[in-house]
Amino acid sequence: MDRLIDAIATVNNPSVVGLDPKPQLLPKQLLDEARADTARALEADDSTSETFAWTSSLATAYLRFNLAIIDAVADIVPAVKPQIAMYEALGVNGLLVYTATCRQAHDRGLYVLGDVKRGDIGSTAAAYAGHLSEHELWMEDAVTVNPYLGVDGITPFVDAAKEADADIFALVKTSNPSSDEIQNLRTVDGATVYEHVADLVEQWGADSIGEHGYSRVGAVVGATHPQEGRELRERMPHTFFLVPGYGAQGGTAADVAGMFDEHGSGAIVNSSRGIIASWRNSERYSEDLSCDEALKVVASCARAAATTMRDNLNAALGR
Amino acid sequence: MDRLIDAIATVNNPSVVGLDPKPQLLPKQLLDEARADTARALEADDSTSETFAWTSSLATAYLRFNLAIIDAVADIVPAVKPQIAMYEALGVNGLLVYTATCRQAHDRGLYVLGDVKRGDIGSTAAAYAGHLSEHELWMEDAVTVNPYLGVDGITPFVDAAKEADADIFALVKTSNPSSDEIQNLRTVDGATVYEHVADLVEQWGADSIGEHGYSRVGAVVGATHPQEGRELRERMPHTFFLVPGYGAQGGTAADVAGMFDEHGSGAIVNSSRGIIASWRNSERYSEDLSCDEALKVVASCARAAATTMRDNLNAALGR
Repeated sequence: MDRLIDAIATVNNPSVVGLDPKPQLLPKQLLDEARADTARALEADDSTSETFAWTSSLATAYLRFNLAIIDAVADIVPAVKPQIAMYEALGVNGLLVYTATCRQAHDRGLYVLGDVKRGDIGSTAAAYAGHLSEHELWMEDAVTVNPYLGVDGITPFVDAAKEADADIFALVKTSNPSSDEIQNLRTVDGATVYEHVADLVEQWGADSIGEHGYSRVGAVVGATHPQEGRELRERMPHTFFLVPGYGAQGGTAADVAGMFDEHGSGAIVNSSRGIIASWRNSERYSEDLSCDEALKVVASCARAAATTMRDNLNAALGR
Repeated sequence: MDRLIDAIATVNNPSVVGLDPKPQLLPKQLLDEARADTARALEADDSTSETFAWTSSLATAYLRFNLAIIDAVADIVPAVKPQIAMYEALGVNGLLVYTATCRQAHDRGLYVLGDVKRGDIGSTAAAYAGHLSEHELWMEDAVTVNPYLGVDGITPFVDAAKEADADIFALVKTSNPSSDEIQNLRTVDGATVYEHVADLVEQWGADSIGEHGYSRVGAVVGATHPQEGRELRERMPHTFFLVPGYGAQGGTAADVAGMFDEHGSGAIVNSSRGIIASWRNSERYSEDLSCDEALKVVASCARAAATTMRDNLNAALGR
């Protein structure tokens, strides 16, 4: 986790920009261009289906959108977190854009946290760990993983992370309302399921603790659970937190403050919509702009929102 | 789940062939060809890296291997289960081969169960549910999902499954040794975590029960847990089971018999290595064969192994 912690210190900003494009988060100009691309593709090749043409054009639009945002924030944030599901929804063309996005972020010096939530057992988990061990294919510095299958599903990722100087983040207490259904079940020894998972995560990371005191096995802890997050911070002294659910999902800077350690380290907070869709609240955006002009508004709004988030977090942390 | 149950009845075979290629499961001839392809690609384009050239060539080898097996078993099994991790390990080129494999199986009339174990929340889960709602992109009839995030992560898949006449299978009790770590935690009401998950799965499927009495929300229950599987069969009367862990992982036909209902329905058993790598035990295979000859041995051994598995299951079930 040392690389991430160093990157946070360099820009004095414990936040990560979630690159989770969706059609409704893109300016109309980009969607219009994608529609025009689709029409051209269908006209040029009548063996192409509408679904393939549209998802391919939309993937291209996602890439332009992402590149504008990466350019705008690369010098003020330490990391980006592309959510692979958004790209996978467009099929293999979408995944090409996922890897191109990771590559561009990497080339701009950002730590790339692939939000893939993979999880399987044995040799299958080892195959998924290719995300880290074959860096050239995916260009990620860390991935999120699902712990439901136990250590069999985690060890291959930990081994790959050690080998590649990379990290993983295991789901512990997620930000969504129904996270209680399984994660908050109370077990006979008095602890909840997520507390058991927390103890396992701390244990899985025990032999990969870096210079800054945190292991290569981080935890995902939702910003929407400030009390649980504070208790988990105590319970998991060597585990770095990835905190989703800030902003659009309701978590505030005050909510997440307890998930940091006494030095203001120990966590990185994600915001997606709050940064990448902040152009929607800007008076400078209008549908009359050209596509390039609209992307400039997207970029400058993202930079402004990322700056505000950094300042709010640092104020709440007294940094 | 009706389509799968009908397909099983048609061929009188409650088993599914796991298409999980790995280099060590391929005959030497295919790997030699992949190596030669790689060398040619590197010679033709010195901007290509060795990793990209090799994974691309290996992906092509996987496709040839899969097509030989699909051709060999298409008339005697109802379904195939490609494990997406094996393809994802080769990057985007691997995923092209995953979709090509699903497409070929679909075109041969097989039910395609994508073993993707995806799981996320809200709009992200909805994006992953594109596996089912955008059939043309992925060509799957069902996918496996991870339940750790609760119903928020499941509803989008259930909605997509209803819309597309497709199904999902949620992990309940997995086949691996460390599945106990989280799944077998005992909660204060006396049930284990996996039993709670079982009750949720039964509930998540309640409004999608088909003509054969099973819902669109199936459960993954490992063959390596015969006692738990028998109890889960009682506990989940409307939930169809996908049973991995047969054969190479140790589960026998007798072990899985209790996971079926009193009519010999209610479950489908997966075998991967036991079918696709059965050529390794054949006297007809030799390294002196041509690549096409070796693939013929792969195909006929897969067919023989699938036939034996069918007959063993039917005998154990008294069908």
